Amino acid sequence: MADPRFFRCAGPFSLRQVAEAAKAELGDGADGDRAFVDVAPLDVAGPEHVAFLDNRRYVEAFSVSRAGACLVHPDLAGRAPRGMMPLLSREPYHAYARVAALFHPAPEVEPGVHPSAVVADSAVLGEGCRIEAGAVIGARARLGARCLVHPNAVIADGVEMGDDCVVGACASLSHCIIGNRVVINPGVRIGQDGFGFALGAAGHRKVPQLGRVIIEDDVDIGANTTIDRGAGPDTIIGRGTIIDNLVQIAHNVRLGRGCVVVAQVGISGSTHVGDHVMIGGQAGLTGHLSIGNGARIGAQSGVVRDIPAGTTVMGTPAVPNREYWRQILTLAALGKKKQGD
Amino acid sequence: MADPRFFRCAGPFSLRQVAEAAKAELGDGADGDRAFVDVAPLDVAGPEHVAFLDNRRYVEAFSVSRAGACLVHPDLAGRAPRGMMPLLSREPYHAYARVAALFHPAPEVEPGVHPSAVVADSAVLGEGCRIEAGAVIGARARLGARCLVHPNAVIADGVEMGDDCVVGACASLSHCIIGNRVVINPGVRIGQDGFGFALGAAGHRKVPQLGRVIIEDDVDIGANTTIDRGAGPDTIIGRGTIIDNLVQIAHNVRLGRGCVVVAQVGISGSTHVGDHVMIGGQAGLTGHLSIGNGARIGAQSGVVRDIPAGTTVMGTPAVPNREYWRQILTLAALGKKKQGD
Amino acid sequence: MADPRFFRCAGPFSLRQVAEAAKAELGDGADGDRAFVDVAPLDVAGPEHVAFLDNRRYVEAFSVSRAGACLVHPDLAGRAPRGMMPLLSREPYHAYARVAALFHPAPEVEPGVHPSAVVADSAVLGEGCRIEAGAVIGARARLGARCLVHPNAVIADGVEMGDDCVVGACASLSHCIIGNRVVINPGVRIGQDGFGFALGAAGHRKVPQLGRVIIEDDVDIGANTTIDRGAGPDTIIGRGTIIDNLVQIAHNVRLGRGCVVVAQVGISGSTHVGDHVMIGGQAGLTGHLSIGNGARIGAQSGVVRDIPAGTTVMGTPAVPNREYWRQILTLAALGKKKQGD
Repeated sequence: MADPRFFRCAGPFSLRQVAEAAKAELGDGADGDRAFVDVAPLDVAGPEHVAFLDNRRYVEAFSVSRAGACLVHPDLAGRAPRGMMPLLSREPYHAYARVAALFHPAPEVEPGVHPSAVVADSAVLGEGCRIEAGAVIGARARLGARCLVHPNAVIADGVEMGDDCVVGACASLSHCIIGNRVVINPGVRIGQDGFGFALGAAGHRKVPQLGRVIIEDDVDIGANTTIDRGAGPDTIIGRGTIIDNLVQIAHNVRLGRGCVVVAQVGISGSTHVGDHVMIGGQAGLTGHLSIGNGARIGAQSGVVRDIPAGTTVMGTPAVPNREYWRQILTLAALGKKKQGD
Repeated sequence: MADPRFFRCAGPFSLRQVAEAAKAELGDGADGDRAFVDVAPLDVAGPEHVAFLDNRRYVEAFSVSRAGACLVHPDLAGRAPRGMMPLLSREPYHAYARVAALFHPAPEVEPGVHPSAVVADSAVLGEGCRIEAGAVIGARARLGARCLVHPNAVIADGVEMGDDCVVGACASLSHCIIGNRVVINPGVRIGQDGFGFALGAAGHRKVPQLGRVIIEDDVDIGANTTIDRGAGPDTIIGRGTIIDNLVQIAHNVRLGRGCVVVAQVGISGSTHVGDHVMIGGQAGLTGHLSIGNGARIGAQSGVVRDIPAGTTVMGTPAVPNREYWRQILTLAALGKKKQGD
Repeated sequence: MADPRFFRCAGPFSLRQVAEAAKAELGDGADGDRAFVDVAPLDVAGPEHVAFLDNRRYVEAFSVSRAGACLVHPDLAGRAPRGMMPLLSREPYHAYARVAALFHPAPEVEPGVHPSAVVADSAVLGEGCRIEAGAVIGARARLGARCLVHPNAVIADGVEMGDDCVVGACASLSHCIIGNRVVINPGVRIGQDGFGFALGAAGHRKVPQLGRVIIEDDVDIGANTTIDRGAGPDTIIGRGTIIDNLVQIAHNVRLGRGCVVVAQVGISGSTHVGDHVMIGGQAGLTGHLSIGNGARIGAQSGVVRDIPAGTTVMGTPAVPNREYWRQILTLAALGKKKQGD
């Protein structure tokens, strides 16, 4: 189903191969030898496609889908329509991710430097790197093996990067050390000056920003996100953290491992975020805070105080989840009472 | 009045020509033969300029303006100062748009490919395209007639685009199909990976994003806005929808026709927005929602539930307009009562 | 302490030289002849480094720091550990800024035009400009002396710029007049079309945007920020104003002098902001407002009315500071009462 203008498909695969990749079990009536050509969404899949159901919101679409096979939680498999072979998994979205990668493995990076790219003599490119048209690699920059730098991206002097990284079109990196398998989407800005000024009525004095950005392995950074370098300490993004589009990460921020930062979040300077913290879209954190491991911050929240580990907060100023909903309900009731007066 | 360093002016035109373009009527005492050289804002216009009054906030400025002529609603024409010729229109802003385009028609695109642009051999450029310095056009990309690609923009492999499109400087497009007369401002990101991960304590697994972005005719997309490609379904922007700067549109979102999306809005994955929906600045919509035709969403709102067609909502979590204001007033009153205690 | 891959250090300097640069006084026991090699943050500084304490939050770190010298307010100097020489200043952050600039003066711009840059024949470059790889300078553009244009930046036809400006990688400028010593970070968009449409059910009509962007001296603009050109009037950023990342500034906005605009703020069209106004992160201002000199707008606020000079406002819709906190406290109390019922 994936448009062949943009995606190459490695199929067909037998249902047995699909189930193995998915770590799923063949459901009742599933024919392991049947061939499937691709994955597809529930509503457009045909008999030759593998679909998935992960969100109960889509059970109706599931029950009328023409998909030949579908990854589904055992509890919902009974809702499958006639002709659909269920592939049973307790984590159907994870299973789908593996099946989608079976049909569409990441294409191998074809090594080479485009003649219009500008690579400094003192830059070092690892084996198998691909540098596309108009990309610029500065002096003493070092890229690991098999890095792919898209057109018109800019990697400034001295930047270091591990193996198997991707730098999107028109992204720019400076003053940073990047780990392995880091994905940097188009238009990302890493390592520019932080917003460091000594304020004054007679003028704001720029404070030299002397730190770096450290990005650990397996980080994924969304399009047009900005990550400023540290003012003295470094700005650090921990291993396996994923960051959506248009996020602002200020100087000296530390994000722990495995965090999830949704689009348009802003994290102010020197705030330290623990591991496995989830931050909902458009939330804002003021500076110099400490956010504990496993905390969850609701979308659009405004966090102005430290958050203990494992706490869920919402609202502006952010308060614990239950308190937030109590406030919302109270306010709604008062609003309605007023009307009844 | 427009700075000739940046704008070419097609004038002068007679007041009669101006009125015809505007679809406006000459008011009392207007001399159709008088020549005008350009449009200008009320406060700086002189006798040789055409101004407009559209917002009652500026009636004072109107009543002392030195503009030689002014597009104005008939109800306000009586406030015109001596010496100003009124041009009567019930939609003065629309009328102004037409007059401004009379004096400043969009310049014709001068065809050509800059020698520093990199156009793949297999790319197809329609008649009259202009590809500026440093722009990169990938393999099998197809551009319609008279497209203008600004410097250092990147159009990746396989992208298709209709006629008369504009791609701004440093924008990047991949995995997308673009209609006719689409305007893509500088720094826009279209078609990159959506934020699709199967989350897990041991690590977040990237889910291959196998959809596209479909942009219909006459869409306008603001600077540094990001539109992710679909995860399997496509991300779709309907005909004539206009999107401001720094907006985030996640994977699988569908925006209907004629929508207005103000700056810094975020729309989460798989949310479907109907036709002619207005979304105020910095509003956020969570995922998997359905927003009815003609709905209006206030600035900074946080929408967490479906919205019926024609409804106006505000606040976080967003509630119907009247309910929102009742809450705000109640809260304000309580705050004040408290003080009086 | 600054990573020599990215920063050159002009040290060592004697403590006396450091104190002079800082305009600080040597505290008790300070040895003016002792040599220091660099600045460093409190927690990693060693005996050869100069640190600073500006935020009481970090007094503990100060009291156990191994820094050889530290800029500190006289009131806190008594908390210095043994072996640290205090440098007394009533404005330690300002003092630090000067000391950091002593050790790390802005590197001189090495003049030259990279062979892959594209500079129009009719463009004029001032003495000592540096134009890096892939940058594009349009026809009739004029740059003052010692401007530094980073790789793949785009300066469109007719743009004028004063002396000693910096344009970051992949930034794009059009329809603008830029003062002296203006810093434009990577990915900034200046001068594109504003969001000017005459709305209509049958389609939204683009209104030609005929103004410019005027940026006065000493302005600093953060990464991926967007500043649209005026619709007729100009968009104006006053002298010495500093703007953080991902900020949206719409057409016809005027920002006064010395303002501070934190990340992800959005300012809607035709709003005029006075001098020395502070706008917290993610705040939004609707259009056509007037914000008085010295006003302060809290983070995430939604401003929908004019603000008198010197007023502090918070919340959505924004109200005076004290009123906001009263509302927040009242609501919190009601939420708790409710629980107790």
